[in-house]
Order: sequence, then structure tokens, then C-alpha cells
Amino acid sequence: MQQKDRDRIVEVFDTTLRDGEQTPGISFTKEQKEAIARQLDKLGVDVIEAGFPISSKKDKEAVKSISHLGLSARICGLARLLTSDIDACIDCDVDMIHIFVPSSEIQREHTTGMSEDAVKEQTREMTEYVKSHGFQCMFSAMDATRTELRFLRELYRIAEEAGADIINVPDTVGVSEPFRMYELVSEIYKVVKVPISIHCHNDFGLAVANSLAAVKAGASQVQVSVNGLGERAGNADLAETVMGLNAIYGLRTRIKTEYLFETAKLVERFSGVQIPVTQPVVGENAFSHESGIHAHGVIKRSNTFEPGIMTPEMVGHRRRIVLGTHTGRHSIEKKLSEIGMSASREQVEEILERVKELSASGKKVTDDDLYSIAEVVTGEVAKHERAVVLKELSVMTGNNLIPTASLKAIVKGRECKSAQMGIGPVDAAIKAIQDIIKGEIGGDLQLKDFRIEAITGGSDALAEVIVGVQRGDRVVTARGVRGDIVMASVEAFINAVNRLMQG
Amino acid sequence: MQQKDRDRIVEVFDTTLRDGEQTPGISFTKEQKEAIARQLDKLGVDVIEAGFPISSKKDKEAVKSISHLGLSARICGLARLLTSDIDACIDCDVDMIHIFVPSSEIQREHTTGMSEDAVKEQTREMTEYVKSHGFQCMFSAMDATRTELRFLRELYRIAEEAGADIINVPDTVGVSEPFRMYELVSEIYKVVKVPISIHCHNDFGLAVANSLAAVKAGASQVQVSVNGLGERAGNADLAETVMGLNAIYGLRTRIKTEYLFETAKLVERFSGVQIPVTQPVVGENAFSHESGIHAHGVIKRSNTFEPGIMTPEMVGHRRRIVLGTHTGRHSIEKKLSEIGMSASREQVEEILERVKELSASGKKVTDDDLYSIAEVVTGEVAKHERAVVLKELSVMTGNNLIPTASLKAIVKGRECKSAQMGIGPVDAAIKAIQDIIKGEIGGDLQLKDFRIEAITGGSDALAEVIVGVQRGDRVVTARGVRGDIVMASVEAFINAVNRLMQG
Repeated sequence: MQQKDRDRIVEVFDTTLRDGEQTPGISFTKEQKEAIARQLDKLGVDVIEAGFPISSKKDKEAVKSISHLGLSARICGLARLLTSDIDACIDCDVDMIHIFVPSSEIQREHTTGMSEDAVKEQTREMTEYVKSHGFQCMFSAMDATRTELRFLRELYRIAEEAGADIINVPDTVGVSEPFRMYELVSEIYKVVKVPISIHCHNDFGLAVANSLAAVKAGASQVQVSVNGLGERAGNADLAETVMGLNAIYGLRTRIKTEYLFETAKLVERFSGVQIPVTQPVVGENAFSHESGIHAHGVIKRSNTFEPGIMTPEMVGHRRRIVLGTHTGRHSIEKKLSEIGMSASREQVEEILERVKELSASGKKVTDDDLYSIAEVVTGEVAKHERAVVLKELSVMTGNNLIPTASLKAIVKGRECKSAQMGIGPVDAAIKAIQDIIKGEIGGDLQLKDFRIEAITGGSDALAEVIVGVQRGDRVVTARGVRGDIVMASVEAFINAVNRLMQG
Repeated sequence: MQQKDRDRIVEVFDTTLRDGEQTPGISFTKEQKEAIARQLDKLGVDVIEAGFPISSKKDKEAVKSISHLGLSARICGLARLLTSDIDACIDCDVDMIHIFVPSSEIQREHTTGMSEDAVKEQTREMTEYVKSHGFQCMFSAMDATRTELRFLRELYRIAEEAGADIINVPDTVGVSEPFRMYELVSEIYKVVKVPISIHCHNDFGLAVANSLAAVKAGASQVQVSVNGLGERAGNADLAETVMGLNAIYGLRTRIKTEYLFETAKLVERFSGVQIPVTQPVVGENAFSHESGIHAHGVIKRSNTFEPGIMTPEMVGHRRRIVLGTHTGRHSIEKKLSEIGMSASREQVEEILERVKELSASGKKVTDDDLYSIAEVVTGEVAKHERAVVLKELSVMTGNNLIPTASLKAIVKGRECKSAQMGIGPVDAAIKAIQDIIKGEIGGDLQLKDFRIEAITGGSDALAEVIVGVQRGDRVVTARGVRGDIVMASVEAFINAVNRLMQG
């Protein structure tokens, strides 16, 4: 990146609601689209591509409603080079209309059957049509990276002459690589004066690198999507691209990066496409450390085994030290000291060995597991009273039964009972425990998180339930694993409460 | 890539079992490690980094056992610059010992406390130690991309002089980008004669691009992992890197790419880290198409909306046309014609509208859903009787109760009842239906798959259950969504059975 570019602000064009929603199997409701648009606006994206209005009534309604949300971001609709498509965008009161035409030989031959001349003529006409209605116009030569450079240059110049405000270079099938992309955008940069936008697909895992290379070559806008959703392997991921621009290239965007994590989680929930643990920037492991050398380094100084130029705080994420087969003693010592436990060097080694064994058997070792092991090894709290001990639980459900749970437990030494109804048996059981605890311990214990881990197997597979319970500032997460999903839920909840009461 | 390099074979060094296993939360059993090693050998990787023998007894045993599997790939073990670490590798009968030392200032200062001179001296001594025992030696300057170039050059030259067979350039915390990586490796290429290996992390989503850039600059070996597993955001993904080298750069590796998909699925199963649908090359969506324009193009000619230079056949994957809100009529026509159904243009439009509505309501539209809709619209099977209709269901569970379900249903017009016990309430309910069906329909219906989709939210969140039921060659998948997980399971199972009985 040249020094003169250092102050450049790169625009972020988000296509989560358009190309992202074209991800096979994904469909957002109108309410979800509005919520995503609001979140993108909060995040600070410059343009929200809200949909492809001609493609369905539902899409059109959503684009229109997003246009009327009063957001700071410009709202964009997609259109082919057809007046009907453009009119549908106009009906939606968008700020910008994104028109596109297949430009490569293979696309022209097999999808539109249009000659080069016809493509050029329609590009001119439809760009003028958009501009004559007073809208901002983005022009895309679809499959640009497989289009002859000569023709591509001509097309972009025609669009510019016809009034396009910005031209877009799509790597539609994801076949470019950074050095080639740099050359291509440099060539285009020479012949057009309007800003250049870049739209990359991730078929070879190069979408982010290609987007950065295009910016290096002069593009001033990146087209991205949250969690990299999009056709096939998706588009350039918003979080990775923005953090690459910021932290590696030292360029600015208008993104408030501290909202990257929550934005990713929102779209994860609505799309049903889980963020893989290894996802850069926003994945569960992005700032997690298990192996002894890495965890030890990070405990001493976080940038030893993290980029440093990107921290969890910058992106609204958090750092975790995870226990497993590769854990070293420093992680054990750190975690024990956090809850005020101490152990001798020999005891730490023994705890470490047990943690590794437990992990090697295939179990995820939680902090609670660690504390239990440590208690046994150090003998410090050889027997602590559990605040809640389950005695009896009966749960009924069915199609003509209101799911009901009756529960008896010893809470702080006193026997308590409660029967509660719920929308299902798990809900009823959890409500019954909550009811008992409320009476004996107080109402300040809140269920913050309830998760059933995906189970695959037969109907008799183990169910793993993870609950988070909060009291004041403290949140404790605990896990229950049983063949019976109701019992696993109850076990997890009681584990969490006991841990909270003990601390 | 220069022309002279076109015939170059790039070596593939796989670190799934070492850096990949350091992924927080992952632990492979010895048997799983052996199975992965065999699969990597079948795939054609040149080097398998099997583990870090000094780190645990379990790791050491696994490395040793992999060394004795008689694979074609060279087996490598990791070691710090300590004779104890190297001896542990020697004990494992590996082919190659990979020694590493933190070289950047920040690493030296905060993890080892070693001076530059001490690092140089130990590098020389330990390289000689490895070579004096007759092993291949790979030397890594950890955190190379944050190390002063001057020191890095000195260090690699010392390693080379001391007999290292190959040197490795790790981008340990994933902070490089392709242009900078190209320059760095070019500089190193000038001062060493031994082959250069490249090891990239994906913190900014640039690991694959950086690996390719290093090869462009002269590196002749790439360090990768299956599904990109590894510390934090992981390592360069094997499939993406290999396909990038093959299809984009026109370089050869020894990888039999047709095994990429099955290799990815094996490691997905053993690691528990799900491959995201949008994963390049091996993800569910890599060659899937939903939107009308894309699906239509691909139906006519696949390379219109796929890279073309990479096909599903090349990587052992398959192409899918997916139904959803963006489906066009060509996809509907194609799918109906595949099962010999025909529909008029108007009927296709109506089917399309219904498919979009169903999808917009949040439901994944299966091929079976399409056929049901098509049957109704075309009037072919206007009313079909359901084989199984649930009448009454009661389920009990608890800590002192054997989970039990009593069920009444109309099966082929006859009222049937059954009570069954299970390991949990879901299991008991499913057993009761199976019992009834077995009596009335026959025992050839088998539950093949039972999945509870991950639920996040309160204990009253909707539970979504997916079941697969097989009869003969035919497998039908159905879904139940309810607040009550027991009812959702029963609903899904009955839906599947009714679909199967109808066909």
C-alpha cells in the first residue's frame, strides 16, 4: 500500500441480504432481514444490498421495508439490464440500483446468448435509464475475471460515460488469485475515473486475499457478506476483509469493529449456518489457546501467540484458555489462581495428567471438571456441601398432556417440592428447579443460555446440554450429559447453580 | 508463475495430526490418528507430521505407531531445540524431525528469554544433533513473519550449514499477506539452497493465499491441514491449497484430488468440527445452486456458474440443485423430469410459488416436499391417505422412573397401542411407534438417522428434529419442529414413515 493511500477510507458494501441470502438453503424472513439491516447499519457499513426485488414478491417487500427503516447506510437493489428489474428497484425506494450483465464469453454464450454489441448497447441504455430516474447506479460486468480485458475495458467505459457512479469487478466463480487480481484492477483503474468496487467469491479460499489485492490496486469499495455467506463457497467475509484492511494494510473503513462479533452471531442465528470454531476473527477458537506453549505465551503476553495487531477486544470477542490433551501446567495454574485455589508443583502435574487423560477419552474438559479434579487432588475442599441436591423428578408429556414436572430437592439442607408446567418436558423441569431455588436461594439466579449440542446418531444417543446461569456479574456455564435429554438438562442446571453458590 | 516452474511438483506436508490436533477442544484417539494417517497416505501427501512426542505419553505412542504403519509418506515428529524433545522423536522411529525455535523479538523476550546468539548456537547444535542421528531435519524459525529479516537470514543459513534438509517459514500468528509473503520468501530463497516449506495461519483468512504466494516466490513445500484445523483460526486448508496450486497456478502435487472430499469428511467425523456448508472445495454448498439464474446456467453448462477449472468430480464431491426462495422454474422442471413427472408451464409456476412460500416460512424444502406439492398441483395424487395418524401419546421420565411412552395411533385404518421403555423419553416414544409400525406395516422400516439440530436460546426454544427412515433402497428424511422435543421427534418420525408408505 502506498503511503498516499494510508488515509484512504475504504467503503464497505454488504451483500449478506442479497448474495448471502442466495446461499443454497438459506431464507431470511422479512423481520430477520430488517434486524440484519439495522445491525449492519449499527456496524457502520456504507451500502446494504438489500435484495433482488424482481426475483420474488417477498424479496421486493423486504427491500422496500428496509429502504424505509431510516438507516444511515445507502440501500441498494439488484437488477438485470431490464427495465422491469430496474422498475422493481425503483418501486422499493432504494438509494442505489446495482445493474449487472454477464460479460464473459462463456456466460454470454450459455446464459444470455447476447453478442458483445448487444451487451454494450444494453449497458449504455440501462445505465442511462437508472440515471434518468435519479438513482445512484452501480454497474457490474458479471464474471469479469473470465472476461477478455479488451471487452471489459470497453464495457466499463461505456457504463461510466452513460453515468454509472461506481463500477464493480465481480470474480463471479472465484477463480482469481491476488497477483492476477492486482493486475486486472490496475488495468481497469487506468481507464475509468469512477470508484471501483470489488466482489469476490471464495471457491478457492481466496476471496479475502483477492479483495485486499484489488484495494491495493485502486479499488475503493469491497463487497462482503457477514460470515462469508453467498453462492457456493460464499463471498469475501466481512470481518476478515475489514480486519485485513485495518490491521494489515493500515487502511480505514467506517466499520465499528467492536460490533463484528455480535453481528456474526446474529447472522449465524438467523441463517442457521453455524460459524465454524476455526472461523477467523469471530470463530470460537479465534482467540482460544490449548497447547501448553501457546497458552503459556498468551498468559504472559497475548501477542506472543496472537496477531497482536488484532485483539479480541477490537472485534468484540473474548480470549479463552481451553483444557485438553495439549494443556500445559501454566494453564492449570492460571485457572486455579483465578478462583483462589492453590496447588503445589506436584499437585499441578497430577491435575494436568488427569485433565489430559479425561480429554484423551474424548470428553471436553470444562473448568468445572478442572475444579472437581483439583479439589480431589489438593484435598482443599475435599467435601463441600452442594447447595442443591436433586432427590426426585417426574416428568410427563404427550399430545394431550400439558408437559408437567414434579420435583423434590434438598436446597441448603431443606427439602423443597414444586410442580410446574412448560411448553415441553425440559422447560417444565427447568421451571420447577427455578421455582424451588427462587424460594430458598433468591430470585437473582438467571438462566442466561440453554443449548442442546447437536446430536447425531440413534434416538438413544447421548444428549449434551449446556446451560449458563448468571448471578450478579458472574456467569457459570455447566454441562449435563445423559441418555435422557430431560435429565441432562436438569443435571446441567443444578451443576451450574451449585458452582455459583459455592464460589 | 514462471514457465520454467510449470513442471515443478509442490510437496504437501500435512499437519492435521500435530497443529490440527492443537485446535482447542480437539483430541483424536490413537486409532483415529492411525486412520487419518492411512487416509492421508491414500490421498498422497508427502509428509505426515504425526505429533509432538514430548508433549504427552499419548502423543508419543501415536507417533510411534504411525511410523510403523508402513506408509509411503514420510513421518515427521515435532521437537523444540532440546535433546529430550529430539530423543522423544528418535524413540518414535520417525523419518523426519521438525525442530523449531521462537525467532522474533517478541517471542524471544516473552516466551524463551533467549538472546539472538543463544538462538543461533542452539539452532546449530540441535540441527547437528538431529543429523548425527541420521534423521531428516526440518528447521523452523517460529514467528518468522515477525522476525527481523537480517536475523532470519542468519538463522536459516546456520541451519543449512548445520545440515538441515529443509527450512520452514511459519507465519505463526497469521499476520502476513500475499504480497509481503512473496517478498519475504523471495529474500530467503536468495540465501538458502535447501528447499523452503511454508506454514501459514488463518487469523485474517489469508493462509491459503499466503501459501500460494510463497510457492510463487520459490517455496517447494506447503504445510496444510485437513479442514484447516490448527491453533486459533487454523492452518492453510489442504483442499483449498492443493486445488489453488493445481487449478489456478497449474502446478502439480502428488495429491489424488478425487479423495479430497472423503478425507475432509473423515476428519470432520473424528474431530467433531463440522465442515461449514460454505467451505470451499469440500463444503456442502461448494457445487450447490439455488438461485434461478445460477441454477439455470449450471443446468445448461456447469462452468457458467462454477469455476470450471475445478469440478465436483475432480475433488470427489457432487453437484446439487437446491430448492428455496430463489429457485427458478428451470430447477423445478429439471427435478420433476428426473422422476418422470410432467407439469404444464402454469403448473410449474404454481409449484414454484408454493416452494418459495414454504421456504420463506423458514422450512428447508426437500425434494420430497417438492414432489408432494407437485402431486397436489398437478392433481396426480390429489388426496393420499396417511398410513400413520397419531392419536394419543403419554411420556414419563424422571430420576426414579424408567422413561416410558404409551402411544395410540391409527395405522392403515386400524387402531394400535404400544407402551415402551427407553433410555430417555424420546427413545421410549420412538420405540413405541416402531413397535406399532412393525406389527402393522412390517419390520423393514429402519431409523437410519436421528438428529437434534443445535438449539440456542431459552429452555422453551423450538426443538428441531430430523430423522431419516429407510425402507429397502429408499431413505426419506423428515423434520419435526415443536417446543416439546419429544413431540418434535415423534412428529418427524411419523412424517418420514408416511412419506415412505406413500411412495
